[in-house]
Amino acid sequence: MRRGHFVMADTGWPGCAKSLKGVILDMCGVLYDSGEGDGVAIPGSIEAVRKLKESDLQLRFCTNETQATRERFVAKLQRLGFDISASEVFPPAPATIAVLKERSLRPHLLVHDGLLPEFDGVDKTNPNCVIIGDAAEHFSYQNLNEAFRVLIGLEKPVLFSLGQGKYYKETDGLKLDVGVYMKALEYACDLKAEVIGKPSPTFFQSVLSDMGLQSHEALMIGDDLLNDVGGAQHCGMKGVQVRTGKYRPSDERHPTVKADGTVDNLAQAVELILNQRRH
Amino acid sequence: MRRGHFVMADTGWPGCAKSLKGVILDMCGVLYDSGEGDGVAIPGSIEAVRKLKESDLQLRFCTNETQATRERFVAKLQRLGFDISASEVFPPAPATIAVLKERSLRPHLLVHDGLLPEFDGVDKTNPNCVIIGDAAEHFSYQNLNEAFRVLIGLEKPVLFSLGQGKYYKETDGLKLDVGVYMKALEYACDLKAEVIGKPSPTFFQSVLSDMGLQSHEALMIGDDLLNDVGGAQHCGMKGVQVRTGKYRPSDERHPTVKADGTVDNLAQAVELILNQRRH
Repeated sequence: MRRGHFVMADTGWPGCAKSLKGVILDMCGVLYDSGEGDGVAIPGSIEAVRKLKESDLQLRFCTNETQATRERFVAKLQRLGFDISASEVFPPAPATIAVLKERSLRPHLLVHDGLLPEFDGVDKTNPNCVIIGDAAEHFSYQNLNEAFRVLIGLEKPVLFSLGQGKYYKETDGLKLDVGVYMKALEYACDLKAEVIGKPSPTFFQSVLSDMGLQSHEALMIGDDLLNDVGGAQHCGMKGVQVRTGKYRPSDERHPTVKADGTVDNLAQAVELILNQRRH
Repeated sequence: MRRGHFVMADTGWPGCAKSLKGVILDMCGVLYDSGEGDGVAIPGSIEAVRKLKESDLQLRFCTNETQATRERFVAKLQRLGFDISASEVFPPAPATIAVLKERSLRPHLLVHDGLLPEFDGVDKTNPNCVIIGDAAEHFSYQNLNEAFRVLIGLEKPVLFSLGQGKYYKETDGLKLDVGVYMKALEYACDLKAEVIGKPSPTFFQSVLSDMGLQSHEALMIGDDLLNDVGGAQHCGMKGVQVRTGKYRPSDERHPTVKADGTVDNLAQAVELILNQRRH
């Protein structure tokens, strides 16, 4: 507010970019499309990350990726050309291990082989909870049945789901995500899973804490309307959706979640943000 | 009502047996436990079916079995020693084929190989709906993903689920049933499946029609509290649960569904019914 007259802060998109202190990026579908091998970078996204890093904005990456350890996942992104280090990336598995320790839980794991090393130091004997991640092909009937039998055999069954996504896009098409199997086990065992990862507020909060920011100072950019955009908004952040990855035109007519902005891709989002901050 | 004083009809279990005209039996978990080969008959059940057939009660079998055609399924029961013929057995697949014809639908099938011959005469080109049955090991990630892609590609996705059971018991333990995968696809595609089979009232009604009975004249006996007992009660029938098959002690403390009676097994149920009718 200046002396003598009122100036309303522009809280809309992209005007809000002026008051931002940090940006959180989703990864798959925003930076790259997964698929055979390392997948492919989405055009303009490598440059967009570089520009954000050169700006005065803080930058973190928040992902529900659970097909690889954080180290291997970040190494893949680096091979694709991204300037990203492991300490900037927040996936669900490390957060889960903290919860297991806190509550003395021993997990039965239904996760991708690539994620197993994250749980190397965790006691998995005589399991008293189940953890499911994006196990993809490992979501066989037999493996799901095995997880079901562990849960149904527990007096107080506890199911952790690393994210609750419905599907994601790989280079050869849409793929079912962990949330679908979470719903399957919830129904089979009459329970409610605990979600670790987006859109859990605890998970977003841990990223904000790491940046030392309050939610209104940060913007989330993702391709998932419910988990990225809706989840961030639920925490008090702005949420912008990109028209890449799993984006579908019907997202822009969703009955309950409305993005603060919708852009063609990350490159356009970053251009709008940085332009706004220059003026 | 006798002259001079009122006699209340006993509508409780097993008193209600006096006024019954027909009995409907669930099959798996009541007559036999499935498993390797043909599975095994539950002790006393072969004799119990014989006694019901010798009585003046009508008898039908109502099953959500979708791992084999009706003919092969009935042949298996006959090999186990049961006096049952195909015309007495009501499974979901024949009912589904009638619906497909009525609504000009061409299905993508995610069902057990054994059920495929039921759909031999059905046009499956360029599918505009998906049918899932108890596909068991065929519920691979790839097959579920394929069904998902068909649904998500349709303007008005239609999913038929042959039953909505959570799990059933085979000789080597509990197995996930089709309902679990129905919930998975419902969540992935934001839709509500149409259930064909128990506990759908339409399905129970078709069995009652075949007997020419009204619902209050019939009793359903099953091991599944929700789909057999609750489904039958919802239609106005009595529902009795057996403590065989997928029965769990917690069923007797269920918050919303209460069986009219609970018996150790089919033999005991039939003994109680026939004794009651003699006096």
